[in-house]
Amino acid sequence: MLGRMYESQTCSVARTLEVVGERWSLLIIRDAIFARTTRFQDFQRRLSVAPNILKARLDTFLQTEVMVRRRYSEHPEHYEYVLTQKGLDLYPIIVALASWGDRYAAPDGSPVIFEHAVCANPIELRVRCPRCGDIHSPEEITAQPGPGLPADASFEITADTR
Amino acid sequence: MLGRMYESQTCSVARTLEVVGERWSLLIIRDAIFARTTRFQDFQRRLSVAPNILKARLDTFLQTEVMVRRRYSEHPEHYEYVLTQKGLDLYPIIVALASWGDRYAAPDGSPVIFEHAVCANPIELRVRCPRCGDIHSPEEITAQPGPGLPADASFEITADTR
Repeated sequence: MLGRMYESQTCSVARTLEVVGERWSLLIIRDAIFARTTRFQDFQRRLSVAPNILKARLDTFLQTEVMVRRRYSEHPEHYEYVLTQKGLDLYPIIVALASWGDRYAAPDGSPVIFEHAVCANPIELRVRCPRCGDIHSPEEITAQPGPGLPADASFEITADTR
Repeated sequence: MLGRMYESQTCSVARTLEVVGERWSLLIIRDAIFARTTRFQDFQRRLSVAPNILKARLDTFLQTEVMVRRRYSEHPEHYEYVLTQKGLDLYPIIVALASWGDRYAAPDGSPVIFEHAVCANPIELRVRCPRCGDIHSPEEITAQPGPGLPADASFEITADTR
């Protein structure tokens, strides 16, 4: 079990950040998903990250089953890091981060465009209501207690009054 | 201008993480967006975060125009922290993090359910191609160089061979 960064938080956002919220984690995931990077030295070359930090992050991903280790060479013995389904399913988070960055932190335009491989149209991220369609503002959304909320934690989601 | 955590990365994911990638940042944003929290003591009570860290994160949000400071009391002088449009627009990131956590890190079910305020249906996050419809796997997505990519950085998005 991982140490908990956000011990007091019963929240799926906090639980996700315990897996991918450390510095460099999400950039490693970005490269694993979208550049198909699998090898230690390729991550290191692309990210210019200190090897001990990269090792620690990859170890966390193995421990949390976001990645599995696979041997790709016997002599010498070498392993690569391959995303599991759990790891691949992080891609909407990367798309959401990139989408905000393209809008607010890319004065020269998007550095990278995510396209649908089939038709080359830029992909979009949508927050939707299955009944009413697209949602355009968080003010259209309310947070409600779910089945996983401990009885003593209802405080967590109570909206403060504006 | 903020210090750059990810100096070598010309990437909207990295640029976004420079704004919201520090420990606690995204939980502060979560509470600001979905619990309408605005006051220092309310953030602190909800998050149990050290005041110096909370102060540093809020200062970053002011500096990056994710929040503005607004006076709500004259005697004594008190300020609250209010999300700008730029800050509100971070909500799909929170929804994406919560969505993955609900699926993979909520063994007792979702602690919190995001609902459409109008009809109380749980909201969904979709990655879509505007032409072909929903995308279900990152293998349907390719990363292509965009206008903001420096000429010497094309290496960044080159897919490594599997």
